[in-house]
Amino acid sequence: MPTLTQFSLADTIAVLTRTPAALDALLRGMPDVWVHRNEGQIGGKDSWSAFDIVGHLIEGERTDWIPRARIILESGEARPFDPFDRFAQAKENQGKSLEQLLDDFARLRNHNVAALQALNLQPKDLEQRGKHPALGVVTLSELLATWAVHDLTHLHQLSRVMAHQYREAVGPWSRYLGVLQCKGHSE
Amino acid sequence: MPTLTQFSLADTIAVLTRTPAALDALLRGMPDVWVHRNEGQIGGKDSWSAFDIVGHLIEGERTDWIPRARIILESGEARPFDPFDRFAQAKENQGKSLEQLLDDFARLRNHNVAALQALNLQPKDLEQRGKHPALGVVTLSELLATWAVHDLTHLHQLSRVMAHQYREAVGPWSRYLGVLQCKGHSE
Repeated sequence: MPTLTQFSLADTIAVLTRTPAALDALLRGMPDVWVHRNEGQIGGKDSWSAFDIVGHLIEGERTDWIPRARIILESGEARPFDPFDRFAQAKENQGKSLEQLLDDFARLRNHNVAALQALNLQPKDLEQRGKHPALGVVTLSELLATWAVHDLTHLHQLSRVMAHQYREAVGPWSRYLGVLQCKGHSE
Repeated sequence: MPTLTQFSLADTIAVLTRTPAALDALLRGMPDVWVHRNEGQIGGKDSWSAFDIVGHLIEGERTDWIPRARIILESGEARPFDPFDRFAQAKENQGKSLEQLLDDFARLRNHNVAALQALNLQPKDLEQRGKHPALGVVTLSELLATWAVHDLTHLHQLSRVMAHQYREAVGPWSRYLGVLQCKGHSE
């Protein structure tokens, strides 16, 4: 294994700034089959469609990443983060179009990356510690790395949800297509 | 489980036309860490970086999808497909930049989608059968569905390869990030 990458603010921002455009290019104007179908019921609950995934990313922009960064910088470990409601978006986004969600996500992400840059974080800030309600002590750099990898985990999920729709249509090729072997992973 | 989707030429083309722009939005101008790092050695071989994945998609445009569609339409099961060299791109793309590969992929895909549309395929054409050297009898619709899911399987892989670089940087959050639990899948 090569050495894994250390956290870099610039590398992290490079991912954060690109995700909205990548999702936009992949999803805007797509037929419903790729937008609203999911992977069926998983553990008794409806799994997520592309629409739900973009809604969830919006919720993160509203309530998770920058608010938590501010809690770390202002209160350190003294004030645990508010828990992240992973299902809030279901109510929030009812009746919206995917295109509205893509616009909302791009606008909020743009705003939040500007807020991150305005913090003008120095190496000692990135080592600041905060308290996650379940995970315990975490650092600001871990929070920001997670923000970027959270984008990637949902891109990973999205490609799997879309591929699932053609599970039968690909016929015998299914055994060669890794995405069709992915069982999903709690996130 | 909801009913899985039947093959639709329009739905398939909707994916095929969007993949180059999605990869472009995600990768163009990215720092090297996201472009050239891989997941280390897997089974004694170097695993693939983002650069390798785009190179592999180019190779598919050159030698796999449209050539195989033509073999099915012209020769049916009488002529098995040529095997797909999944490592050809390693030689082909040495010395190129990622940006050149993204341009090549977009141009070739655009050309191939136009070629697909020019075939003016009818329902009976989509049921035509061909012979895969390892999988046996396949249909034209299965080939075309696989073309689209092949894009998605490599988007799935790409998000995993990128996320891997921050496996340590995310600290204790790694357990919540599904993409970091994905073991990869032969494809």
